Amino acid sequence: MSTSAFLPRPDAAIGSFRRLFDRFAACGATPAGGVDRQCGTPADGEARNVFASALRGAGAEALTDAVGNQFGIFRLSDVADAPLVMMGSHLDSQPLGGRFDGALGVAAAAAVGETLLAAKRAGARFDADFCAVNWTNEEGARFRPSLLGSGTYVGAHDAAFALSRADDDGVTLREALGAIGAIGANVPPPKPASYLELHVEQGTVLEEAGATIGIVTRNWGAAKIDVTYQGEQAHTGPCPMPRRRDALLAAAYLITDAREIADRWPGVVHTSVGRIIVAPNSPNVVPSEVRLSLEIRSADDGVLAEAGALGEEAVARAAERANVVVGSATRNVRPIRALTPAVADLVELCACDAGLASLRMDTVAGHDALSLLGICPIGLVFVPSIDGVAHSEGENTSDADIEAGFATCLDAASRLCRAGGSPERVLTESRA
Amino acid sequence: MSTSAFLPRPDAAIGSFRRLFDRFAACGATPAGGVDRQCGTPADGEARNVFASALRGAGAEALTDAVGNQFGIFRLSDVADAPLVMMGSHLDSQPLGGRFDGALGVAAAAAVGETLLAAKRAGARFDADFCAVNWTNEEGARFRPSLLGSGTYVGAHDAAFALSRADDDGVTLREALGAIGAIGANVPPPKPASYLELHVEQGTVLEEAGATIGIVTRNWGAAKIDVTYQGEQAHTGPCPMPRRRDALLAAAYLITDAREIADRWPGVVHTSVGRIIVAPNSPNVVPSEVRLSLEIRSADDGVLAEAGALGEEAVARAAERANVVVGSATRNVRPIRALTPAVADLVELCACDAGLASLRMDTVAGHDALSLLGICPIGLVFVPSIDGVAHSEGENTSDADIEAGFATCLDAASRLCRAGGSPERVLTESRA
Repeated sequence: MSTSAFLPRPDAAIGSFRRLFDRFAACGATPAGGVDRQCGTPADGEARNVFASALRGAGAEALTDAVGNQFGIFRLSDVADAPLVMMGSHLDSQPLGGRFDGALGVAAAAAVGETLLAAKRAGARFDADFCAVNWTNEEGARFRPSLLGSGTYVGAHDAAFALSRADDDGVTLREALGAIGAIGANVPPPKPASYLELHVEQGTVLEEAGATIGIVTRNWGAAKIDVTYQGEQAHTGPCPMPRRRDALLAAAYLITDAREIADRWPGVVHTSVGRIIVAPNSPNVVPSEVRLSLEIRSADDGVLAEAGALGEEAVARAAERANVVVGSATRNVRPIRALTPAVADLVELCACDAGLASLRMDTVAGHDALSLLGICPIGLVFVPSIDGVAHSEGENTSDADIEAGFATCLDAASRLCRAGGSPERVLTESRA
Repeated sequence: MSTSAFLPRPDAAIGSFRRLFDRFAACGATPAGGVDRQCGTPADGEARNVFASALRGAGAEALTDAVGNQFGIFRLSDVADAPLVMMGSHLDSQPLGGRFDGALGVAAAAAVGETLLAAKRAGARFDADFCAVNWTNEEGARFRPSLLGSGTYVGAHDAAFALSRADDDGVTLREALGAIGAIGANVPPPKPASYLELHVEQGTVLEEAGATIGIVTRNWGAAKIDVTYQGEQAHTGPCPMPRRRDALLAAAYLITDAREIADRWPGVVHTSVGRIIVAPNSPNVVPSEVRLSLEIRSADDGVLAEAGALGEEAVARAAERANVVVGSATRNVRPIRALTPAVADLVELCACDAGLASLRMDTVAGHDALSLLGICPIGLVFVPSIDGVAHSEGENTSDADIEAGFATCLDAASRLCRAGGSPERVLTESRA
């Protein structure tokens, strides 16, 4: 059932993938080997141009929608309105992020499309078209929420909402994308028959297990609580301590309590406060306002609910102890969900055929694939992160592992495109 | 011994003072009645121009030195190289600060100079010249350290150091002052024979005592500890909790511990963290670096030493608990010192002659006057802050109180200028 007879030599496909990956890594490259390529920056614009030109060079039709999502349609089928197999990830990065996070999956998708189109031209037959995609603002670093482009594509947000999101300087996504020419007028392609994403693990599970291919079967749930504490600006010198209404002190109580919540369920709950905005943030002024984002993650529904409730209690208790008020607190819960079993089985088959050790595992982090969950069958494929380093310039994955991940996804995408995008059909035919 | 026979009607002097104060309040005015006039901003430039033109209009020689300190020399004596009585404060504000802090003292100084020069023209004789001054960057809000202009004037810093200080965007004081045309080429006037400063109290001591004039006899000591915590950037999702090296968690432990240090000595120790800079400050990234400023203040030498030592222990303990390292920690101690008793006696005499209730008290906050302490006799005069509100747009002082403060300082400056700048000579002659 393999299509490999029709595929170009693996060396050529891998070479194409590696060249594109390296070109992305040069966009916003930092001296320490990472990238600073936040959404809507000139570096993001460069990477987007590299992607569009690679798509066109590979024979795809390049589309950009109203929120900057970029699609490359590779016509593999001979019929109009054939089902679509979609594969992609994101080109935006964290501030001082790594060069693998997101870009790996986008480069792999474009190279898969190029390889399958070459196979078609060499005589292979496909029952689906293929689409490589770069989703806007996955990270949620410059603009919040995260997964903004993929969320808009599936209808979780409308485009006007997405474009009105503003960064810390008040620049909207519309302005930022407009400034780099990244807003398009194309209607995005219709919902795909199936979706694949290759990503670095960003943890240590694969490394500790000695496995090469991570097959994600479930995502951890997350409760994200955005809190604003309102205190009162005062002079840090003369203002008597009992009169102070210190918003930063409230934030500090919450941050230490959040760590204690994680420590109650070792390995089962992760908590963090990664972002805090303090006003007026002057050495001699008691802070009057603090905004922060508290995350609580777990793979256990009951524990997540309990930890989330403790988090909300901690938000209120911190305010009381610091004599400030909770200006606002919004809680956004991403539920624990199972990913599509048939796609997991398909990826396992491909890894097995290639002689690669695979492991079924959770994803703790959010990924664009999760936006598509519920819309179509999805597969999320991990390769190991050396020492688990992630969201850091020090992020790294071995050449052998990224090539193994690419080969696995190329095989899975190829089989899906031959089977009209249906993982069940691939599995049924593989058992025949 | 009063010079009042030669002074213009108090109404005229007070009118001149109020008009100038109101013109300062319009520079960087905020809708809530405060000012945002941080050092080196266009609003600061406007206020500086208002001051220079008021000085020239009042008959002073206006000078600006290399770090932007502005001086207005009123020639009251008939001899060259007469001693100088200096009076002033600062025009820079905190972000969203009040309109009284600093500007009150600068407006009073200019109006005192104008009034004394008019008295000389009306026949009064003085043995000293008078100088009204606006010191650069007292607040330490945009550029650190605070008291930068007055500190440079007395030789605590050199001008090159002061001009090289950078704000959070990397803009240096030299660039910021240059952009508003506030760097001068004048040699600053020689060290004065005595220095006076009128300021709002920024606390509740006067209000609670029912007094109008605060005569500062001592400043609280302050230990200011600037700390950098170095952790490691990581993904807030998959990175296992025990592997995290969260610099913000360390900061939170320190902030809560600092509050506990103050609570050990109620009313005797004030602590605060007003400023914190977090990198990369993204919701999904474990913070890798936090810089913050911890202040510990007390009027008791022994307690300050003990609390300062506890603060340093807390800095180290927080790093250990959060598994991060202390990148740097610098401790800057402002000692507890007595202000000049003879100037306090003189101010008390003036308040008494005017029928104003006065109170000897401490200053918890730093003021430019403290830069001059040890250089010449200094007097620091407080008027009440309504509800003690300070470093806030809500800062307020009644008209009656600011006029009482102005009248007291006008009388004190007048007597000093008649006595060659010597508070002892004023006191001796007043007893004669």
